[in-house]
Amino acid sequence: MNKIVTISREFGSGGRELGRRLSEELDFAYYDQEIIAEIAKRTKLAGDYVQQIIERKPAFSFPIHVGNTFQVPGGELVRQKAAVYHEQCRLLKELSEKSDCVIVGRCADYILSGCLPYRIFVYSDMESKKERCRLKGEQDKDLSDKELKHRILEVDKRRSDYYAFVTGQSWGEKHNYDLCISTKGISVREAASCIAQMLSGSVRMRND
Amino acid sequence: MNKIVTISREFGSGGRELGRRLSEELDFAYYDQEIIAEIAKRTKLAGDYVQQIIERKPAFSFPIHVGNTFQVPGGELVRQKAAVYHEQCRLLKELSEKSDCVIVGRCADYILSGCLPYRIFVYSDMESKKERCRLKGEQDKDLSDKELKHRILEVDKRRSDYYAFVTGQSWGEKHNYDLCISTKGISVREAASCIAQMLSGSVRMRND
Repeated sequence: MNKIVTISREFGSGGRELGRRLSEELDFAYYDQEIIAEIAKRTKLAGDYVQQIIERKPAFSFPIHVGNTFQVPGGELVRQKAAVYHEQCRLLKELSEKSDCVIVGRCADYILSGCLPYRIFVYSDMESKKERCRLKGEQDKDLSDKELKHRILEVDKRRSDYYAFVTGQSWGEKHNYDLCISTKGISVREAASCIAQMLSGSVRMRND
Repeated sequence: MNKIVTISREFGSGGRELGRRLSEELDFAYYDQEIIAEIAKRTKLAGDYVQQIIERKPAFSFPIHVGNTFQVPGGELVRQKAAVYHEQCRLLKELSEKSDCVIVGRCADYILSGCLPYRIFVYSDMESKKERCRLKGEQDKDLSDKELKHRILEVDKRRSDYYAFVTGQSWGEKHNYDLCISTKGISVREAASCIAQMLSGSVRMRND
């Protein structure tokens, strides 16, 4: 069985950077935006649209008496969302069978639970997250402090809702993860190097 | 300002071992049961009794109209609990001023928050905790599986109640900590070594 590390992360916490650096340290494949692009290709939908669907709660919960033979408002949208979700599951499984890998987001910790992934949750305090967003995000540069905070909370609310919908679990609740790490006041590079070292020595990640 | 690492831990998770090993790796002082012994000495109460008080919610919340001039049932007990709690705060502050240190339990993460401690929470799944208790705890060897689970949950409930009472925060809620680590399937020794390495490189723990 291949070794899988999954990264869940609060928006602006540096989780993506930690995942990327961890994949380099461990010499694992790294999947993040590539997953969106591939789902878009397979479902023949636009990448931006897939991204939007994947970070929102899928609206599968239409009334149970509505069968396929009825026209429902938004029926096409529901079908698209279902298609994206199923493609996401299929793709994650394919990737996990291909090689050792680090996967960022996409509920991979839950969808691939059969592969016993090492599940990391990355978080930080609001001040550090705002600072990181301003440093990294082109689109966040001109937002006021209040607008930026609102954006961070909004993205995390969507992630949390989507995760709860797909998994029935709480996003960020530590018992759903093996490691929860705050990036406040630490070097993400150093953290990635230390986690990689710890994983290389662990029963679950050893190469024997 | 001295560098402080605090360890909060679920019962049976190996938090104490992680704390001890971390103090060795960092060459920091280590305080755990010593705190109980010192409080016992200062309050002239028995060590076991102090331990019992310290892991239970202090009953400060007697009716507000009960003044010092009235005899209240359990009044002496309330005074003892208050004395132990205040001695605990005083002692933790003294220790933090003495040298760099690792402190296990005693709400040190909250009481010493002014020292900006690096706050670690150690947890694990129930099966691993039961296994560790059977390996380490003399008194847990003869308990049935059900009894042991009950004991683990009971100790953690007391810790959680005590922490909530003293701090007004949730015990184990990740935003109250810098790192939450599960010991399931990892080597505690390896984890301690990696965390020490990460801390040595971090802004908050650097020797410059």
